[in-house]
Amino acid sequence: MNRSDLTQAVDGEMTGAEKLFQALRERTADAAAGGVTRPSYGPGEQAAHDLMAEAAGAVGLEIATDFAGNLYMTLPGRERGAPAWIAGSHLDSVPSGGNFDGAAGVIAGLSALAAFRRSGFVPVRDVTVMGVRAEETSSWFKGRHGTHFGSRAALGRLDPGELDRAVRLDTGRTLGEHIRDAGFDVEALRAGRAYLDPKRIHGYIELHIEQGPVLERERFPVGVVTGIRGTVRARDCACFGTYTHSGAVPHEYRADAVLATVEFVAALDREWETVRDAGGDLVFTVGKLYTDARVHGLSKVPGEARFCLDIRSDEPAVLARMARRAETLAADIGRRRRVRFELGPVVFSDPAVMHVGLRRRLLEGCRELEIPALEIASGAGHDAADFAHAGVPSAMIFVRNAHGSHNPEEDMQMADFALGTRLLAWMLADAR
Amino acid sequence: MNRSDLTQAVDGEMTGAEKLFQALRERTADAAAGGVTRPSYGPGEQAAHDLMAEAAGAVGLEIATDFAGNLYMTLPGRERGAPAWIAGSHLDSVPSGGNFDGAAGVIAGLSALAAFRRSGFVPVRDVTVMGVRAEETSSWFKGRHGTHFGSRAALGRLDPGELDRAVRLDTGRTLGEHIRDAGFDVEALRAGRAYLDPKRIHGYIELHIEQGPVLERERFPVGVVTGIRGTVRARDCACFGTYTHSGAVPHEYRADAVLATVEFVAALDREWETVRDAGGDLVFTVGKLYTDARVHGLSKVPGEARFCLDIRSDEPAVLARMARRAETLAADIGRRRRVRFELGPVVFSDPAVMHVGLRRRLLEGCRELEIPALEIASGAGHDAADFAHAGVPSAMIFVRNAHGSHNPEEDMQMADFALGTRLLAWMLADAR
Repeated sequence: MNRSDLTQAVDGEMTGAEKLFQALRERTADAAAGGVTRPSYGPGEQAAHDLMAEAAGAVGLEIATDFAGNLYMTLPGRERGAPAWIAGSHLDSVPSGGNFDGAAGVIAGLSALAAFRRSGFVPVRDVTVMGVRAEETSSWFKGRHGTHFGSRAALGRLDPGELDRAVRLDTGRTLGEHIRDAGFDVEALRAGRAYLDPKRIHGYIELHIEQGPVLERERFPVGVVTGIRGTVRARDCACFGTYTHSGAVPHEYRADAVLATVEFVAALDREWETVRDAGGDLVFTVGKLYTDARVHGLSKVPGEARFCLDIRSDEPAVLARMARRAETLAADIGRRRRVRFELGPVVFSDPAVMHVGLRRRLLEGCRELEIPALEIASGAGHDAADFAHAGVPSAMIFVRNAHGSHNPEEDMQMADFALGTRLLAWMLADAR
Repeated sequence: MNRSDLTQAVDGEMTGAEKLFQALRERTADAAAGGVTRPSYGPGEQAAHDLMAEAAGAVGLEIATDFAGNLYMTLPGRERGAPAWIAGSHLDSVPSGGNFDGAAGVIAGLSALAAFRRSGFVPVRDVTVMGVRAEETSSWFKGRHGTHFGSRAALGRLDPGELDRAVRLDTGRTLGEHIRDAGFDVEALRAGRAYLDPKRIHGYIELHIEQGPVLERERFPVGVVTGIRGTVRARDCACFGTYTHSGAVPHEYRADAVLATVEFVAALDREWETVRDAGGDLVFTVGKLYTDARVHGLSKVPGEARFCLDIRSDEPAVLARMARRAETLAADIGRRRRVRFELGPVVFSDPAVMHVGLRRRLLEGCRELEIPALEIASGAGHDAADFAHAGVPSAMIFVRNAHGSHNPEEDMQMADFALGTRLLAWMLADAR
């Protein structure tokens, strides 16, 4: 397809895309808490899958699901034996989240295939739009488990133990039970079977809203992702000291869990400055920090503080260094301040570099289609990281979005979405 | 009374004192939470007052109550017109507190008067044991109010507005309503009437368990208190930032309420070191620090943190300096980190210096009675501070106590209590 045909065809699908977003918002609205709620393996996620399959059926795509309930909607290419393109993203959401996070990638893929279909264009390769299950794992599941169940399940990269260890926060049921309840094949997953073969995938491209403010602040509608930050996470950290009277006990006899934790967090915060000053990539967040509401008080030296750590970088060495630093600080401060830190399980996820060839092609597409684009790192995790770790050439397109994500106020403009979808379609139309 | 008569007479009351502690523990036990619970103007406090009045009646003391329900148990002296001694302490407790905090002072006073009575000794001055109401105000009442309602009410130092502003945490009823419910004269308090005239009080002496570990660590059974630390307290501090994604938003775009609060608290902690290194007196506590459990998360930059400040010193200048420092830090860090601090009401209570003459006499008594004693500052507030502020010569005797106070594990030995009571009786027996 030439540039103007492609642009016209994609733009012709935008009214339909907007209706699809609207229907999705209505079917998965959270009346109580606002925004949308599509729990991983819950009714909201299923409603999203049903809606997308319906839309794919209307365009005449081939529809399939795998053991884990991931949805595949395929436009057959001229050479059906050739490795296929996959354009995917997830259809679950965080509780009371926004309508675009995840779903934008699936609707962009469906819009591209609808544009191909209606303009009579048949690509060389099969192009599959994938609706991924259970990407928002950290919002829905507790217990020791990795991220992104759906994409890892499709690629045979789920540890079978996770099926029992991961427990949904709202239902108390395990991941395995939820997969079985939803009608999928938990035994196949337990046996470690993979539905997708990386060698049969030409490339994985994921369009997603940017979850930070960079494109908006820098005034670019579209971003080409360089890589996905890895994480070091400690979900259940605690500091134990001794409750005592805030007036009567001199500092040198205290074991103050809050002052110890404050020193610990402040030291990690300074570490961020050091890495930044050296030009490194790092973000560091203590999203929760709390004393025990049942016993804390204005006049009590706090005997306990609980907190979590979320450390992200695109450099594995920085992640390892921060994890070591946290251990050292916990030991040193614990000794000096007469408290005991327990950092709990410290879980690493590796950074994922996006495929250099695909990134180059995306930038070429932006020039060709005259889309202003910025190269940008992804701070959030995405299914694209799991495809990259499995050896699939993977790339991501970010679309500008105001007010961040994981909240009802996320705000992607359809004009920006149209530019991102043009770029996605341009890639998928090309057999290279 | 000579030394050996006094010692023998006081020691003869210790079996009765132990029974009184035991009865008090049984009548005010907290079956659900452990320890004892004697809410200010609640049933546990009333049970304690009833029990003490009963014991005083058995010894033949004169019994009276004032507008606010404070209890006065008086052994008439030879010169009834002379200013009287008051030996007092409070009979309420914190929720799930210990049996000795407060009550030890009342039982020591009753034991001294019983010893006088049984040995036929009649002091020159009236000696009144005072069971004070509602000392544990910060554990039971919210709203803008001062500390120690009972002693301030007796001295006419209650602000009538406090009767409506102070609201009990468990019942939601105001202090005024509670006083009326308990059968006392709230209108007299509203009119600002004082029951006690400082000029009619020769001196106020309060025996109390030490609420810190100093006597225990330094191995002294008894302490003579030099002064009571004043406080600067901010009960409801908050830091407001912006919730956002922990991975996708670079630090320079964040408004992280936890990292800002951590910097604030760490800076005040360093201020403590500065004061200490200069030989000053200061303790500094952040007893509560918490993100919002309804919205915080591992993957969210925290948009809100709440905390409280409790700063104590025996020097008014140190308190003022710390309060100014907190304001300056809040403004500076707020600007630099793009957050807003709201420290809320910052409430001062002045340090109270114990009467130099009475302190000297207490030390003289320790030498005379061969009681090893340490001079020590009181970090906790006490009714003695209110008497001192009203111009009454005031002094305190601390008794060694393990495991701190405000918890069921507080542990005063009767042998130490006997030494403290001997010292108290020695003071009260003397007309000077």
